[in-house]
Amino acid sequence: MAAWGERLAGVRGVLLDISGVLYDGGEGGGAAIAGSVEAVARLKRSRLKVRFCTNESQKSRADLVGLLRRLGFDVSEGEVTAPAPAACLILKQRGLRPHLLVHDGVRSEFDQIDTSNPNCVVIADAGEGFSYQNMNKAFQVLMELENPVLFSLGKGRYYKETSGLMLDVGPYMKALEYACGIEAEVVGKPSPEFFKSALQEMGVEAHEAIMIGDDIVGDVGGAQRYGMRALQVRTGKFRVPRPHRPGPPPAACSVYSTRRQQLERHFLSGPEGCRNVNIFCNSPEGLHRWGAETSGPECLVAYSGHSSPLLTIEPTPGFWLRQGSRAPRNWSQELQLMGPQIP
Amino acid sequence: MAAWGERLAGVRGVLLDISGVLYDGGEGGGAAIAGSVEAVARLKRSRLKVRFCTNESQKSRADLVGLLRRLGFDVSEGEVTAPAPAACLILKQRGLRPHLLVHDGVRSEFDQIDTSNPNCVVIADAGEGFSYQNMNKAFQVLMELENPVLFSLGKGRYYKETSGLMLDVGPYMKALEYACGIEAEVVGKPSPEFFKSALQEMGVEAHEAIMIGDDIVGDVGGAQRYGMRALQVRTGKFRVPRPHRPGPPPAACSVYSTRRQQLERHFLSGPEGCRNVNIFCNSPEGLHRWGAETSGPECLVAYSGHSSPLLTIEPTPGFWLRQGSRAPRNWSQELQLMGPQIP
Repeated sequence: MAAWGERLAGVRGVLLDISGVLYDGGEGGGAAIAGSVEAVARLKRSRLKVRFCTNESQKSRADLVGLLRRLGFDVSEGEVTAPAPAACLILKQRGLRPHLLVHDGVRSEFDQIDTSNPNCVVIADAGEGFSYQNMNKAFQVLMELENPVLFSLGKGRYYKETSGLMLDVGPYMKALEYACGIEAEVVGKPSPEFFKSALQEMGVEAHEAIMIGDDIVGDVGGAQRYGMRALQVRTGKFRVPRPHRPGPPPAACSVYSTRRQQLERHFLSGPEGCRNVNIFCNSPEGLHRWGAETSGPECLVAYSGHSSPLLTIEPTPGFWLRQGSRAPRNWSQELQLMGPQIP
Repeated sequence: MAAWGERLAGVRGVLLDISGVLYDGGEGGGAAIAGSVEAVARLKRSRLKVRFCTNESQKSRADLVGLLRRLGFDVSEGEVTAPAPAACLILKQRGLRPHLLVHDGVRSEFDQIDTSNPNCVVIADAGEGFSYQNMNKAFQVLMELENPVLFSLGKGRYYKETSGLMLDVGPYMKALEYACGIEAEVVGKPSPEFFKSALQEMGVEAHEAIMIGDDIVGDVGGAQRYGMRALQVRTGKFRVPRPHRPGPPPAACSVYSTRRQQLERHFLSGPEGCRNVNIFCNSPEGLHRWGAETSGPECLVAYSGHSSPLLTIEPTPGFWLRQGSRAPRNWSQELQLMGPQIP
């Protein structure tokens, strides 16, 4: 494994995801994740620039910052990059009037937007607002348009609340895409434009920045494709391998080449091998099974069975593998590992 | 255009889709489509075998047949192939206990099925039942399973009620597939097993049967891939080209080769050409844009702009093209064309 000094060389700015990294939402607003308040304070005391880069689309930035401050975080509205304000900018630039399928909590962000006689649809994490009636209305608006345009604020699959996993906006985006035979425009992570605006607001180049998040596609994959470094925390939606899974435990990992056959051989055979390994490739379209046509350095995740990463591999020569049972379990532990390298 | 005599040679059985072909659902149960009651009666008087093959999953077969009889159709429960009974058979064969996300109207079909401690999820056209809460529950059940299994009763995009277009089960299937990173098993059209059981119940081989429906993917594509002939009606969810679309009107069509370039050249250039033509290929995964890799006889639809077929092409040497403005508008007109050929 490359030393942290090498891995963080030249980093001047840190982008922090919020939900699942700083706090888990839920009853009463949610709860801070252990160690995260102190970690943010420590980052802010360092010479690193810090910005918050979220796909939160249920709350306005004002409400989100209010909640975080009540949980003890040192954060202000001007430090947050969020998809609703970014969407408003695009709507104005392109003269679009949206039909909104969004949570009431974020509706105030669209106060200055003309929503009469809509010529596009904007969906966000609407939670209970994703009723059949509301989805059907958005579908009918799109089907009436000559050139249907659908914006989705993020495309996350799900997120974690204190009560359990919750469907995010992504599945509903896919539903409307399929129903109408169209492709949505994603505003938010992993869209390159979104990272670009966050970095501009921080005054840092992509190669000088690291993204810290819990989403392998939205946070890690998106940031890496934009030329940033990225770090996946093991809190929030991250799911650790289940101990009751059949088959021998996964082998201990160190450093591997990018070669698919080699990875498969390692995991599928030998006394340390485990069964049912799929190797996924983090492509611009999201995670998909790594086929023979895939090549080149990518961010990879190998799953044993369903949705439980055994390891992540970063796109550097001499990939860095983190094996489930040996990796740190939350991001303040990650930061402790990083600690000596923070300028 | 091939003569109807050639096209229907050897046909011994007719499979009829129900919604959008015999009637449009809606307030008060819906309304029969003009000419359809008489057409069914005429088919039944002929020497052809007739069976009803539906993806209806909001109603039990008993309720559906009751409604059709009230609308004047000559139909009995034993003549209907529907996905809920087919799903029950599969669940029993594989020892699966479903969590049901279905409409109350079809729940009675699952009366004999053990739904305790679920180890799979079955979704059907649940209508208003597709609330966020119900979708999230189905999602959570799947995420708790070691090997998540999702059955979808059909995968239609939408259907038409008298009040307008309505989202079908397909978009919600896609949502759960994306959220969980899995692929659903479709029970109903266009699944080959479903056509197989309908044909077995009718005692007719695939090459002796014709499917009549309004869905280019579920009815026409599915039947053709199973070796049957198929006919798309222009009622139900079928949408005719809009007169206000910019660009010159589509050219009159006769018979074409399968060659994509030739089709594109015809539609995109020349004094009769029209703009914005996409050529779609009806593959097992549904309609997708016809790429250079596509070859061989397929059922094709060319769209000018969005979702409005200009023509359909059937997979026979010397394709049969139906041009929007000249084609018959409902299936009783189709049957009148077929009329002289009915034995």
